[in-house]
Amino acid sequence: MLDENEIVKNSVPLPSVRRLPLYLTVLEEFKKDNKEWISTTDFSEVLFLKPIQVRKDLAHTGIIGKPKKGFKVDELILTINNFLGWNNLSEAFLVGAGALGSAILGYTGFEHHGLNIIAAFDASPDVIGKKIHGKEVLALEKLPNIAERMQVKLAIVTVPKSAAQDVADCLVSAGIKGIWNFSPIKLQVPNDVVVQREDLSSGLAVLSVKLGRFDR
Amino acid sequence: MLDENEIVKNSVPLPSVRRLPLYLTVLEEFKKDNKEWISTTDFSEVLFLKPIQVRKDLAHTGIIGKPKKGFKVDELILTINNFLGWNNLSEAFLVGAGALGSAILGYTGFEHHGLNIIAAFDASPDVIGKKIHGKEVLALEKLPNIAERMQVKLAIVTVPKSAAQDVADCLVSAGIKGIWNFSPIKLQVPNDVVVQREDLSSGLAVLSVKLGRFDR
Repeated sequence: MLDENEIVKNSVPLPSVRRLPLYLTVLEEFKKDNKEWISTTDFSEVLFLKPIQVRKDLAHTGIIGKPKKGFKVDELILTINNFLGWNNLSEAFLVGAGALGSAILGYTGFEHHGLNIIAAFDASPDVIGKKIHGKEVLALEKLPNIAERMQVKLAIVTVPKSAAQDVADCLVSAGIKGIWNFSPIKLQVPNDVVVQREDLSSGLAVLSVKLGRFDR
Repeated sequence: MLDENEIVKNSVPLPSVRRLPLYLTVLEEFKKDNKEWISTTDFSEVLFLKPIQVRKDLAHTGIIGKPKKGFKVDELILTINNFLGWNNLSEAFLVGAGALGSAILGYTGFEHHGLNIIAAFDASPDVIGKKIHGKEVLALEKLPNIAERMQVKLAIVTVPKSAAQDVADCLVSAGIKGIWNFSPIKLQVPNDVVVQREDLSSGLAVLSVKLGRFDR
């Protein structure tokens, strides 16, 4: 019965967690411009958030700003990354080397977020053995063995809906503890496994309804 | 100052809107199995939602269930699609034919959600003129002209961060009213333009923090 509004880890609301990568984006820009300090107002103006929201979001990471100066850019980058656990690179598998899976393999941004995709798996002989963005696609049945040997705990699932639960079962029995699920179904997993679902059609639904305010 | 928790269209909370595509997924399965009725309990069990949440979510669409029977499958599909405006296909452009843009062009699911991507645009001579998943990539400078001629109001932005605001400005002046933004920045647009941001790193942040409950 997990919900988007659920509150995790010392009562940090998920919308705040979701915004933290945005703060990092702004901080990287400041760093590139050799700026030493960043203020609540700086964030507020770039991200269109209310200052009180910025203060609340950042307070969750445990950092305390300096009156009139704000936060040291380097320190805040470190603090947010620490909070998210992104200072340590986690190794992950990707299962499902179709169009979406390939796009994710080709995206270089995840390594900045502590995620290193070390292998891709698929069940189709058409793609097994091929290289996608420099990563070889392995046969799905090899996953349990490799997961155990390499102690991989994280997997990205980009298979079609019909295969998703079978893949999840396979991942769970292979010792995977975190699943980033891009398939449009809810996965059933034991209590000690975390699933985060990404659903592009949810975003499209929100856009459709917001647009409806104007032209329907 | 829009926020994820904002309430739109007759006070429907966005988390409910986000869940509606999930209900559609379940309904399509029931339809495939030739089932005529679906109950709150059916949804509750498949989606791991509390029955009260299911009832609230569906009530927003205006449908009224029948005691002990629930909802007619066909009627509920129609009602949700109507609510989301997904019965009418909206034509959309995609800007940025890189890895993510290509994946989106290859994804066939959006047409079930009322979205028909009719053309792709890019600024790079390397991809202009090429076909990706059957759709020709056109030069970005042709967009305003084609948007006006075809009365397209929706665009998907999958360009790098550095190009995103320029592309948004171009889209706004071409009369685009809805932007589905996959770039990791907030876009500045006039009040009558709706932006829905998709940010994969937000999902990764939530997964990281949830995982932290177990192993950090």
